Amino acid sequence: MQLLCGLATIFVLLAVLREQQVQAACGYANCPAGKANMINVHLVPHSHDDVGWLKTVDQYYYGARNDIQHAGVQYILDNVIRELLRDAKRRFIFVESAFFFKWYNEQTAEVKSQVKTLVKGGRLEFAGGAWSMNDEAAVHYQSVIDQFTIGLKALQQTFGACGRPHVGWQIDPFGHSREMASLFAQMGFDGQFFARMDWIEKTERLKNLTAEVIWKASEVLGQSAELFTGLLYRHYSAPPGFCFDALCSDAPIIDGVSYDNNVKERVDTFIKYIQEVTTHYRSTHVLIPMGDDFNYQIAAMNFKNMDKLIKYVNERQSLGSKVNLFYSTPACYLKAIHQAPLTWPSKAQDFFPYSTDWHTYWTGYYSSRPTQKRFERDGNHFLQVTKQLTTFANLTGNDVNSNLDALRHAMGVMQHHDAITGTEKQHVAADYDRLLAAAIESAQANARAALQKLTNLTNGEFVSCLQLNISVCEFTKNGADQLVVTLFNPLGRPSYEYVRVPVNNEAYIVTDETGRLLPSDLLPVPAEVQRLSFRPKIASHELVFLAYVEKLRSYYIKKSANPRSVEELKVETQMRSMNSIPKRFSEMHKKSAEENELKSIAIDSESRGEIIVKNSHVKLTLDSSGHLTKVEMNGVSENIRQEFYYYNAAAGNNAEFKNRSSGAYIFRPNGTELLIGRQVTFSIYEGTQVKEVHQRFSDWVSQVIRIYEGVNRVEFEWLVGPIPINDNIGKEVITRFTSNIKSAGVFYTDSNGREMLKRKRNQREYFKPNMTEAVSGNYYPITARIAIEGESNRIALLNDRAQGGSSLKDGALELMLHRRLLRDDAFGVGEALNETAYGEGVVARGKVYLILSNAEGTPSRYERLEQLQIHLPFWKFFSNATKATNKKVRQISSFNLPQTVHLLTLEPFNANERLVRLENFMDKYDANPVTFNLRPLFDQLSGEEIRETTLDGNLNLSEMIRFKFQPESSNVTKPEYYKTLHSPLLAKKKDSVSKFSIVLHQMQIRTFVIKWR
Amino acid sequence: MQLLCGLATIFVLLAVLREQQVQAACGYANCPAGKANMINVHLVPHSHDDVGWLKTVDQYYYGARNDIQHAGVQYILDNVIRELLRDAKRRFIFVESAFFFKWYNEQTAEVKSQVKTLVKGGRLEFAGGAWSMNDEAAVHYQSVIDQFTIGLKALQQTFGACGRPHVGWQIDPFGHSREMASLFAQMGFDGQFFARMDWIEKTERLKNLTAEVIWKASEVLGQSAELFTGLLYRHYSAPPGFCFDALCSDAPIIDGVSYDNNVKERVDTFIKYIQEVTTHYRSTHVLIPMGDDFNYQIAAMNFKNMDKLIKYVNERQSLGSKVNLFYSTPACYLKAIHQAPLTWPSKAQDFFPYSTDWHTYWTGYYSSRPTQKRFERDGNHFLQVTKQLTTFANLTGNDVNSNLDALRHAMGVMQHHDAITGTEKQHVAADYDRLLAAAIESAQANARAALQKLTNLTNGEFVSCLQLNISVCEFTKNGADQLVVTLFNPLGRPSYEYVRVPVNNEAYIVTDETGRLLPSDLLPVPAEVQRLSFRPKIASHELVFLAYVEKLRSYYIKKSANPRSVEELKVETQMRSMNSIPKRFSEMHKKSAEENELKSIAIDSESRGEIIVKNSHVKLTLDSSGHLTKVEMNGVSENIRQEFYYYNAAAGNNAEFKNRSSGAYIFRPNGTELLIGRQVTFSIYEGTQVKEVHQRFSDWVSQVIRIYEGVNRVEFEWLVGPIPINDNIGKEVITRFTSNIKSAGVFYTDSNGREMLKRKRNQREYFKPNMTEAVSGNYYPITARIAIEGESNRIALLNDRAQGGSSLKDGALELMLHRRLLRDDAFGVGEALNETAYGEGVVARGKVYLILSNAEGTPSRYERLEQLQIHLPFWKFFSNATKATNKKVRQISSFNLPQTVHLLTLEPFNANERLVRLENFMDKYDANPVTFNLRPLFDQLSGEEIRETTLDGNLNLSEMIRFKFQPESSNVTKPEYYKTLHSPLLAKKKDSVSKFSIVLHQMQIRTFVIKWR
Repeated sequence: MQLLCGLATIFVLLAVLREQQVQAACGYANCPAGKANMINVHLVPHSHDDVGWLKTVDQYYYGARNDIQHAGVQYILDNVIRELLRDAKRRFIFVESAFFFKWYNEQTAEVKSQVKTLVKGGRLEFAGGAWSMNDEAAVHYQSVIDQFTIGLKALQQTFGACGRPHVGWQIDPFGHSREMASLFAQMGFDGQFFARMDWIEKTERLKNLTAEVIWKASEVLGQSAELFTGLLYRHYSAPPGFCFDALCSDAPIIDGVSYDNNVKERVDTFIKYIQEVTTHYRSTHVLIPMGDDFNYQIAAMNFKNMDKLIKYVNERQSLGSKVNLFYSTPACYLKAIHQAPLTWPSKAQDFFPYSTDWHTYWTGYYSSRPTQKRFERDGNHFLQVTKQLTTFANLTGNDVNSNLDALRHAMGVMQHHDAITGTEKQHVAADYDRLLAAAIESAQANARAALQKLTNLTNGEFVSCLQLNISVCEFTKNGADQLVVTLFNPLGRPSYEYVRVPVNNEAYIVTDETGRLLPSDLLPVPAEVQRLSFRPKIASHELVFLAYVEKLRSYYIKKSANPRSVEELKVETQMRSMNSIPKRFSEMHKKSAEENELKSIAIDSESRGEIIVKNSHVKLTLDSSGHLTKVEMNGVSENIRQEFYYYNAAAGNNAEFKNRSSGAYIFRPNGTELLIGRQVTFSIYEGTQVKEVHQRFSDWVSQVIRIYEGVNRVEFEWLVGPIPINDNIGKEVITRFTSNIKSAGVFYTDSNGREMLKRKRNQREYFKPNMTEAVSGNYYPITARIAIEGESNRIALLNDRAQGGSSLKDGALELMLHRRLLRDDAFGVGEALNETAYGEGVVARGKVYLILSNAEGTPSRYERLEQLQIHLPFWKFFSNATKATNKKVRQISSFNLPQTVHLLTLEPFNANERLVRLENFMDKYDANPVTFNLRPLFDQLSGEEIRETTLDGNLNLSEMIRFKFQPESSNVTKPEYYKTLHSPLLAKKKDSVSKFSIVLHQMQIRTFVIKWR
Repeated sequence: MQLLCGLATIFVLLAVLREQQVQAACGYANCPAGKANMINVHLVPHSHDDVGWLKTVDQYYYGARNDIQHAGVQYILDNVIRELLRDAKRRFIFVESAFFFKWYNEQTAEVKSQVKTLVKGGRLEFAGGAWSMNDEAAVHYQSVIDQFTIGLKALQQTFGACGRPHVGWQIDPFGHSREMASLFAQMGFDGQFFARMDWIEKTERLKNLTAEVIWKASEVLGQSAELFTGLLYRHYSAPPGFCFDALCSDAPIIDGVSYDNNVKERVDTFIKYIQEVTTHYRSTHVLIPMGDDFNYQIAAMNFKNMDKLIKYVNERQSLGSKVNLFYSTPACYLKAIHQAPLTWPSKAQDFFPYSTDWHTYWTGYYSSRPTQKRFERDGNHFLQVTKQLTTFANLTGNDVNSNLDALRHAMGVMQHHDAITGTEKQHVAADYDRLLAAAIESAQANARAALQKLTNLTNGEFVSCLQLNISVCEFTKNGADQLVVTLFNPLGRPSYEYVRVPVNNEAYIVTDETGRLLPSDLLPVPAEVQRLSFRPKIASHELVFLAYVEKLRSYYIKKSANPRSVEELKVETQMRSMNSIPKRFSEMHKKSAEENELKSIAIDSESRGEIIVKNSHVKLTLDSSGHLTKVEMNGVSENIRQEFYYYNAAAGNNAEFKNRSSGAYIFRPNGTELLIGRQVTFSIYEGTQVKEVHQRFSDWVSQVIRIYEGVNRVEFEWLVGPIPINDNIGKEVITRFTSNIKSAGVFYTDSNGREMLKRKRNQREYFKPNMTEAVSGNYYPITARIAIEGESNRIALLNDRAQGGSSLKDGALELMLHRRLLRDDAFGVGEALNETAYGEGVVARGKVYLILSNAEGTPSRYERLEQLQIHLPFWKFFSNATKATNKKVRQISSFNLPQTVHLLTLEPFNANERLVRLENFMDKYDANPVTFNLRPLFDQLSGEEIRETTLDGNLNLSEMIRFKFQPESSNVTKPEYYKTLHSPLLAKKKDSVSKFSIVLHQMQIRTFVIKWR
C-alpha cells in the first residue's frame, strides 16, 4: 500500500468565509482577548474524571470508596458550577458526558438554568463531550462514533449550539490513533489536544517546535480528515507547584499579612515556567492546563488561588513583565493560534506505541482482560441489533428510549480508556461487566418487544444467550425440543452465515419458516471447553446449519421424533484419531470451479504423517505433531505454521526503568519465550458443512481449527487458561503464524477497525526509536486485522476483539490472546493483572480468522467484507417454538445496499427522527466510489425528510465550518476554514427520487437524519 | 485543706426569671424545635481547626504544606459560609477566633454582611470563641482569660450579642481542669462540652448515665462557678461511617439510580448508632457532632450528604421510627436539655490525668518543651507590662492597638492545646517561637513609646532582653558603663525585688534616680551556663541589687571610675571549696526576731562534713556529697533532700498498648529511674544580699541554689541538657525533694495557677484507677505550685512554667524539668520529642522555689503572695543612661491595692475604655473577703464611668443569665437560671466615692470597664 493523500477535493478552503461568522459562533464568541506583544497564557481549568478506573463509575460519581481514591465527581460539578457563578471571568471545561448528565439530571431547575447561563457565556465549555474519554487503541470506530453521538446529542439537546465542543480533549489515552483524529474531523471538531506521546518523540517535537501538527488522519479522505492536534507541554497537569486542590499539596498563594507571604516567589516561579513553555511552541499564546485527575473537589480552593495567581502575575506587567494570564479554554486557545499568522508541520501516521522510557511500552493494555474486551464487542453487537430492531418496530415511549439508552450509555462507558483497555482495578472490571450485562438485559426488553411485533411469535421469549462462545445457553440446551432461533442480520444486505446452537447429544431437525428441512451438523463441544466444570451449563454439542437472512428470519429446531429420520439427515460426523485416519468429505455445497481450483497443491504425502482437512474452498495440512503447517485457499498455498507461545513477564520493582514489570498497561517480556505444546493431541470432526480440528496443546491451551463449506477463511477458536502461575512468573500468551512470506519488516494493522496503517518493524514515522524492548516496542493495537504480504501471498488475521499484535519476523504474525501477571506496573492501578474466576485464573476463548490470498489484486477487499461479517454477525434470539402464531406481521427486509456499503448505524434519534450512517467500507485500494440511491431506504424507514449531518448526527453538515490551519509551505494571509464540498443531502418525500442519489467515496461515512411519519 | 463549697450565696437561683427572656436571647431564639416523643438528634456540624499542630498557624490557615496534612482553614470558612447560605436549615459552629477573624478580615463587605445574617439567624454560631481552644493543663488562668477576652470581644464587636458563644467547646484538650470550668461560668457560659476523659471514667460514666454533670468548679465561688459539662459520646467525630469530607472515606449517601444505592443501609446504620448513644444519656435529645479535624474543606460534600441523611432518616418516621434528625448546635442541645425535667449528677474535682488505656497517661505534655513553656510565660509577663504601660501612657492610634494586639493574639495562639502543651511538630514549635518573639517585638514598640512618655529618658532605648535567664543581654554586657535599668512593676502594689543584670567582670555602682548609692553584689555566672559556648553573648557576671518599685522606677548602673570606691561598696564575695570552708555572713538586712527565730535548729555538726549556707531568714544545709539535705526557715526545720533523677523512657512501637512509647503527649517511664550525680561538685558564693551554691551534678545537669536576704524562699535554678541520648534511650529529668513529712499520699496542686486541688496518690474522685503506670498515672499538671504537708511542716514548690509533678512517696515532691525522647507516641504528631539547638539537645534552664513553713496557720497565704511575685516580677528595660533628661513626666504610682488583691488586668479596651480585673488571690483558707474602694484607681485611670462585666469583659454583668441545671436531689418544676446576686458596680465620676466601694470575696475576680476622659 502506498501512503497517499486522497479525496482532497471533498473539502475546500473557503477563503471568502468571513471572520465574523466564526467569531460569532457559540463558544468562540466569548473567548477572552489576549494582549498584543505579550505571552498570552490560556489557563484552562479542568478535571480529568475517569469513567471508572481505581473505582467504579458510580463510586467515582458519588465519591464512594474514597479510601481507594478521594474522588467524587458530583462534588466537583457542584462546586465548580458554584465557583463559576461567582466570577464571570472564570472558566472550566468538562469532558465526560457520562458524569455530566448524571449530575445535571439531579439538579434543580434553578441550577440547570444557571448552568445554561454558564454554557451560553462560554464559562462552562465542553471539550470532547463524548460519553467518556475513549481509549484509542482497543476501541472500534463504530462504538467511538456511537459514544460521541450520545454525548454530543445530550449536549445539543440541553444547551443547543453552545454546548457543542470545538475540540477533542484526549488527554489521558495511552497513545493516539489516526482514526480518532479522522473521526474528530468528520464530527466537525477544530482540533484536539492530548498529553501522552512516546517520550523520545515528545522530546524531539518539543525541541523542534513540532508539538502541534496538522494531522492528515486519513489516506483517502483528504482535508475532511485533517485535524489540528496539539501536545500539551507537561502531561495534563498544572505547572509544577501550582496545583491547588484536595488531591495535591502545592503551596497556595499566600498574599495576606503573613510571615509566609509568598507572592513574589510564586509569581517568579510561574513566569519562569511560562517562559520555559513558550520556547517549545510556535505561538505567543500558550495553553496551560490547570487541573488533574479528579481535581476541583474543592473548587473554591482552585479558583481562589488561580484568581490570585492571575492578579499577581499580571500586576508584574507594570514592571515590564510580558506574561499575561487569563482563564480560557482549549477552544479559545485554538481560536487564538488559528488567527495568528503561523504555519504548522503535518503528521501522517499515528502515535502508537506509546512509551514512557527505555523499557516501558504501553502495549500490554492492547490485550489486557481479553474476556472483557470481547464482552464489549458483544455489547456493541447487541446495541446495533436493538437499535435497528427498535427502529424497525417503531417502538416508542420512555421505557423504550431508556432501555436503549442504558445500553448506549454502558457502551459509552466501556469505551473509556480504563475500561476497554483493561487497565482498571479488578472490582471495577467486575462492575463494568455487571453494568454492561444489566444494560444488555435492558435493551433485550426492546428487542423482545420489537420481535414480538415483527414476527409471528407473539409471546416469544427471544432469549439472548451471552455465553454462546463457550456453548452455554440453558434455553437451548434444555428447550431444544421445540426451539425457534430468530436471527437478526444487522448488516445492510442479506447474508449467509453458519449458525451454531448449543444442544444436547440428540438428534435434531432444522427447518425454515416454511417447514423446509435444512441440513445440519451436530458437533461435540471440545472436551477442553466441557471440562470448564465450574460452568455447569455447558452443552455437550452444537447444532450447525447454514442460514440466509435478509434482515430477520426464524429457523425451527426440533428434537427428531424418529431418530432414524434424523439419522438420515444428520451429517455424518466422525472422530478421527491419529491412528485411524479415514477421511470423509460431505460436499453439500457445489464447488465453483473457479473458486476451488487450488492453484498450488503441494500436499505432503500422508506417508509423512500429515493430515489434510479440507473443503471445497480451503485445504489445511497438519503435521505429525498436530500443528497446522500449510494452508491452501484462494488459489494460493502457503506454509503457515500456527503455534502458541508465551512470554515470561518481567517482574521488577518499578523503582527504576530497568526494573519495570509487565502489568495492565505495560507489556514487558523478560526475554524468555516458550512454545506451548511441542506435540499436540488432536481430533478431527468432519461434518457436511463444517470441519473441525480439536487441538490440545497443554492443560490450559486448546484450539478448534474450523473451516466451513463455502467460506473462504480459516477459523481458529482458541481456549487459553487458567494460565499457570505456580512458578511465580507472569505469562503473556500469543498465537503465532509463521510463513515464508518475505514481508521485509512491513506489516499492516487497522486503526480502530477502519483504515489500515503500514508498520515497519523497529521504525517510527518521526523519530528513531530506541528498541531496547524489541518485542513490546513493535507491538501495535489490532482491533480487527493485521496483515503481511510478500510478492505473491498475503496473510491477514482478523480477530474478534482488540489485541496487541505484531510481525516480529518476516513472514510471521502474532496476536496476544491472554495475559496473567503477578506484578503491578506502577502506573496507578495498583494491582497485578491477575484475573481469576471460580478460584483460578480466568479462561478466555476467542477466534482468530486467517485469510490467505494472492497479494495481487485486491485481497483487502475480501478481508474487509469478512471483517464486517465477523464484527456484526446474525444475532440469535431463542424462543420456544410453540409460541409461533399465525399473526400477520410487517415484513422487514434488508436495504440491499451495495456490497461495499456498510449500514454503520440505524437507530431512533430525536423524536420522529432516525439516524442512518452509511459507510463505504472499502479503501481506495480496494474499490471505487459507489453511487446509489437512498430513496428505497428512506421509504422503508417511512421517511418524510432527510438531512445530512456531521458524523455525530448533531450538526447539519451545511453548518459545519472548521478551522483550517496552514501547512508549513503556505503563505498565511488570514484565517481560513474547511467546509464540505459536496452538497449535503437535504430532501423531502415529495422530492424526486433522483435527489436521493448519493456518492460514497471510499472510506467515506455519510450521516443522515430522517424525519419519519 | 478541706473541700468545702463556699460562697454559695453570691449567686442565687432566680426562679422568677421568665422563660421568654432566654427564649428571645440571641442564639437560643433560633434553635430548631425537636419533636415530642421522639429521639431528637442534634447534628452539630463543626470543624476542629488546631491553631497549629502538625503545621503552623498560617500553614493551616492558608492550606500550605498540605503534604503534611491537607488542611486549609480559609477554604473551610469560604465553603462553609457558602453552604450555609444555600439552606437556612443548615448550621455550623466555629470555635477558634484566631482563624475566624483572619478569614473574616479578608472578606468583602458583601460576604461580611452575609456572615452577619448567618450569625443573627443562628445558622453560624460560635462555641468557645476564644482566640484558640486552649489547653487546660499547662495554661495559666491569666492567659486563658486574656485569650477569651480578645476572642469574645472581636465577636461582640463584629456581631453584637448574637456572636457571643453560650457554650464552651473544649473537645480536644487532653484532660480538663476545674479552673477552666470555673472561668467559663464566670464568663457567663451555660455549659461546656468535651471529648476526652480517662477511659475508665468515661466507660463508667457512660454506663451510669453520668457523662453529663454539674461541675462545681470552685471550692469557694459556689454557684457562680457551677457549669454544666457534657462528655461527647464518641470523641468529637461523626458517627462511624458518617464522615463526609475530604479527609475521610466513608460511604456517601447514594440515593440516585445506582446499583450502589445505599439509602436503606445508611439509614439503618445511623438509627442503630443513635439508639446506642441514647442508652448512655439521660435525655431524649442527643448531641451528635458531625465533623472532625479540619473537616469541611469540601463543605458541599458534608452538607449534601447530611441533607440526605436527615431526609431519609426522618422519612423513616412514617414507618414508625422515633428518630428525628436536624441541624443544630451545642447551645441548642443545651437549651433543649435544660428545658427538660431532668436532674444531673455533680462533679467536684477535675479530669486529670487523662488516660486512654492501661499504659497511656497523657502526662508527658505537662512538661514537654520546657523552654517554650517558659517563653510563653515571658510573653504573658510582657503582655501584662505593655498593656499597663499603654494604658498609663494613654497611647492611642492604630499602630498602638495593632502592636498590642499582635502580642495578645500571639499569646492567644500560645494557649492552644498543641502550643503551650509542646505537642506540635518541631517546625511548628519554631514558628510559635518566631511568632511570639515577633509579637513581643511589636509590643516593645508600645512599651518604648510609653516609657519615653512616662520617664525622663526621652530617647531611651528601653531594650527588653529575653534571654536574661541565661545571662544574655548584649545591651547590658557591652553598655553597662552608662546603663539605666527601668523597672516596671505589673502588680497592683509596690514591691521589693532583687534585680539581676548581666555585666562584665568589672566594678559597678548602682544608684537610684536621686543618685543614692545602692548596695549590690557581683556574682559570677555559673561555669555551666558560660560553657554554653553556642551562645556567645553570655555575660560573665551578674550585678544584683534590691529594688523597690511602686509602678515604674529607673536605676542607674555605672562602671566605677575609681575601682577602690567600688571595692568598698562591693559585697564581699568569696568562693568556698570543700577543702576550705571559711564562712562569712554579710547581714545587711536587719533580722526580724520573730521571723528569724528558728524553731528547730538541728544542724548536723560540720564535723560530719556539712555545709551551711544561710541568711537572716533561711538556713540551708548541704551534706558532704554536695546535696541539699536540710532547710530551716519560717521557724521550722525539715530534712529536705534535693536531687535530680531521670526516668528512662519506654520505647515501644505503639502497636499495642503495652508497647506505648513515651512521647510528646505520653509520659511512660520504662521502670528505670536513675540518680544524676551521686557526688556533686559545688561552689558557694556569698554576697551581702544573695548567697548562691553553684552545683554541678553531671556534664548536663547543674544548679544554683540561691537565697536572697530578706526573702523567705529558696530558689533552685536548674540547668538541664543537652540530655544525652548516645545510649539510644529517651530520658525524662526531674528534680525531687524528699522530706520526712508524713503526707499520707496527699498532695496539693494548683489548677491553672489559681485554686488548689487535693490529690491522693493512686486515687481518683469517681472511679478506681488501674495503676499499671504507677509513676505517670500519679502525675498532675503543676502550673504554679505543688505542696505537701504533715502535722507540722509544709513544703510548697513554686515553679516558673508548667510542669508535670507528683508526690510519689510520702514526704516527696517532684517536678519534671526536661524531656528528650526518641520515639513518637503515636497520637498524631509523628515525631519524637527530641528538641535540638545548635546541633545538640536543647538545654533548658528554670527555677523552682521552695517554701518550707509551718503547716498550721495559713502558709498558703504567703505562698500565694510569692506566687504573684514570681509570676509577674518587675520587667527590666535597659537604656543608655546618657539619654536621661530633665523632662517633667507624669508620675504613675501603684494603685496600692490591698495586699491580697491582685491587679489581674489593666489594659486598653474599646475606644475610650479600659479594662480592669481585680482578683482576691486568697483562698478562703488563707484570708477573708476584702472590702476596698475603687475610686482612687478609677481616678488614676481618668475614669468617667465604670461598669462591671462578666469575666471576659464583653457582657454587662447585669445582663448575665445562665442556665441552672438541677442536681439529682432536686424536684424539677421548670427551667431555672443563675444570676449574680451582688449588685454589679455601675458608677460615674459624679457619683459619691462610697459608691465605688467593692467587696472581693476570696478567689473572686471582678471585671470592670472604665470609660475615661
